[in-house]
Amino acid sequence: MSIEANIDDQTGEELGYLMKKLMSEGSYDAFFTPIQMKKNRPAYKVTALCNPLDQEKITKLFLKYTSTLGVRYQTLNRTIMKRHFDSVETEYGVVGIKIATYEEIKKYSPEYDDCEKIAKENQLSLAEVYQLVSNEWQKNKEEVI
Amino acid sequence: MSIEANIDDQTGEELGYLMKKLMSEGSYDAFFTPIQMKKNRPAYKVTALCNPLDQEKITKLFLKYTSTLGVRYQTLNRTIMKRHFDSVETEYGVVGIKIATYEEIKKYSPEYDDCEKIAKENQLSLAEVYQLVSNEWQKNKEEVI
Amino acid sequence: MSIEANIDDQTGEELGYLMKKLMSEGSYDAFFTPIQMKKNRPAYKVTALCNPLDQEKITKLFLKYTSTLGVRYQTLNRTIMKRHFDSVETEYGVVGIKIATYEEIKKYSPEYDDCEKIAKENQLSLAEVYQLVSNEWQKNKEEVI
Amino acid sequence: MSIEANIDDQTGEELGYLMKKLMSEGSYDAFFTPIQMKKNRPAYKVTALCNPLDQEKITKLFLKYTSTLGVRYQTLNRTIMKRHFDSVETEYGVVGIKIATYEEIKKYSPEYDDCEKIAKENQLSLAEVYQLVSNEWQKNKEEVI
Amino acid sequence: MSIEANIDDQTGEELGYLMKKLMSEGSYDAFFTPIQMKKNRPAYKVTALCNPLDQEKITKLFLKYTSTLGVRYQTLNRTIMKRHFDSVETEYGVVGIKIATYEEIKKYSPEYDDCEKIAKENQLSLAEVYQLVSNEWQKNKEEVI
Amino acid sequence: MSIEANIDDQTGEELGYLMKKLMSEGSYDAFFTPIQMKKNRPAYKVTALCNPLDQEKITKLFLKYTSTLGVRYQTLNRTIMKRHFDSVETEYGVVGIKIATYEEIKKYSPEYDDCEKIAKENQLSLAEVYQLVSNEWQKNKEEVI
Repeated sequence: MSIEANIDDQTGEELGYLMKKLMSEGSYDAFFTPIQMKKNRPAYKVTALCNPLDQEKITKLFLKYTSTLGVRYQTLNRTIMKRHFDSVETEYGVVGIKIATYEEIKKYSPEYDDCEKIAKENQLSLAEVYQLVSNEWQKNKEEVI
Repeated sequence: MSIEANIDDQTGEELGYLMKKLMSEGSYDAFFTPIQMKKNRPAYKVTALCNPLDQEKITKLFLKYTSTLGVRYQTLNRTIMKRHFDSVETEYGVVGIKIATYEEIKKYSPEYDDCEKIAKENQLSLAEVYQLVSNEWQKNKEEVI
Repeated sequence: MSIEANIDDQTGEELGYLMKKLMSEGSYDAFFTPIQMKKNRPAYKVTALCNPLDQEKITKLFLKYTSTLGVRYQTLNRTIMKRHFDSVETEYGVVGIKIATYEEIKKYSPEYDDCEKIAKENQLSLAEVYQLVSNEWQKNKEEVI
Repeated sequence: MSIEANIDDQTGEELGYLMKKLMSEGSYDAFFTPIQMKKNRPAYKVTALCNPLDQEKITKLFLKYTSTLGVRYQTLNRTIMKRHFDSVETEYGVVGIKIATYEEIKKYSPEYDDCEKIAKENQLSLAEVYQLVSNEWQKNKEEVI
Repeated sequence: MSIEANIDDQTGEELGYLMKKLMSEGSYDAFFTPIQMKKNRPAYKVTALCNPLDQEKITKLFLKYTSTLGVRYQTLNRTIMKRHFDSVETEYGVVGIKIATYEEIKKYSPEYDDCEKIAKENQLSLAEVYQLVSNEWQKNKEEVI
Repeated sequence: MSIEANIDDQTGEELGYLMKKLMSEGSYDAFFTPIQMKKNRPAYKVTALCNPLDQEKITKLFLKYTSTLGVRYQTLNRTIMKRHFDSVETEYGVVGIKIATYEEIKKYSPEYDDCEKIAKENQLSLAEVYQLVSNEWQKNKEEVI
């Protein structure tokens, strides 16, 4: 489900802190959208996506950590790809690979956290790490999938 | 409920005028979101939040005051804090205080219009006025709440 | 209905290509909204509006042409003006006119593609062409409508 | 010149108030740009355009009415069209017309405030008023210009 | 150099058309930034980057194709990577490769237009084509660079 | 000075990583602005503010960690408030206070990091902590400043 509120009486600092809270306490995702409200007020819409079982918990984060007096919520339908997990060995260490399929469509993507770790340790850009992982994966994928 | 339309064939001037109309004729709230539409068109999504009883009236404002040929609408669920109103006396005059509660969460906020009036009359920033009001409120709140 | 996904692992180039695909394969409309996601990621929400009969087709475009592992979708209600079509003759050629009515509200707008063609061929701005078409239309409209 | 600051510790309410101050105390123009700052903070850049002679005054508005500890400024070069003013009589009253020329380019635009007044008094949309004014202007312009 | 104007009295359709003009008549680049102007007006800043020799031409495009009465301009300094061009053969055809170097930094990127053509002809996503090209390039690059 | 680049061929993930790099390697500040580029590409402008002595270092971060082939840069003028630092004792610990003055204007603000720490440890919102600190500061400031 999605829970959201328009915020024009809160600072960016406070919203940055809210995002950490939302992510650490169980939202699937949280994001800010720039909006323009009445009386020339530049503002942000805060949206959290969460499990309906967590509605009460996430709602209370909004009410406690923002100035809003209420939240709007909706149940959302989703179409989701099937996922399974694999990994690939690179010269810098093992990297997880997320494989997603939906009918004839198949995609894979390296795990962000593994790639970030390699990027940091080796002074590489993320793009370079992804490229590297991709190459290793391509070489071996017929056997793997 | 929310009523909205994507607008790529209207000017900012006209949308600014629309916002006044939406607010003065009964929307709870109205806001613009920057969006990017087909054919390289920079555009805005206009959203009005209103009472379902006002759907027809607000819809007609969209149709009359924008170029859109239709609007999308949705019923939204809301979780709302209980509100009651109090006030605090400051050296510059009385300021209304909105008190909001939801289970163990309690917040208060000074009325914007009162604060703006004080800010204007005394060449203060809004932040200074809020601070002032807050201090007065803190001093007296145990007796007040 | 609307189908959407938040994208933080795709480039603008790829999203520009996606928009062409969405528009050429049957979406009514498609647009991007700037959002700010977790971990300091600047991102875009991609939204396609389409006929519910095309849900499967449009969903697969998202899954094939973006990196997302799933989409969210909603059925939307719409209030739509009645439309009929007319045309007006100008010194640069014929231009289609879309006439929209809803109860006492009546609007007309020149067809964009006709106007763009005239603008290009005659080194005019779009605003100049719209003005020209409008003037011709105003002169003749009592007979036409 | 332009004076600007990135604001992540101020509310939309306060920035809305700042805009009024900037416009009423002599900025040519003022605008907000949504930006994303460090630590997941959604923020706004505030820009004021003003006469270099007003630099000190406008700078002090930033320092007094926002939380920023400093402003950045730049001198800008401008290319400007020559303007003169005329007016046109409509069935709803007289409307000022701004005529702008630059070499072979010539444009005119109705005065916003006059049009807004007519729109309000006659329950018209701004687009309808502009159209009306434009038509009157077109009819008479050969004599006028 | 950069040439820019804030536009609140022009439609998205007209700005989309302007972008085509700016790109086809010699700008290096052109882009729109969402901004919020006075009187609750949602607006866009239009920026064109161009060779100083084209200042007059680009300025006139702004003045002719938008409603602005003036433009702001600045000379910009740039630090640029050295570029040379190569190509790689793939199973779907030849793709140009742009190689950029700056001291010890070296990057390459496939030509967008070549990749788009392959994507279209083979019902692939752009990401798939880039991956494919990258792999071919990686295999051969030691000899090539 | 400011260093910037428009990015339409990089993912949000990669830009989020870039921000960390820019901040940890010496930028004063770094921020993203949503922009709309040619060919329907939703994009971001990346801006870093830094000491001119760090120009080369920050430029190389752009060239290494993004796909851009060049950066634009400008020297900026700044007007800055004088700052000194104090602190205030609260029931939850000591909090630094930044005091800024410019002629007759005087502002203070609690140190973000101290406040965040207190907020985390005591399950308070940032707004609550700022309020608390402000109250303590107000009580004692005559002696302190």
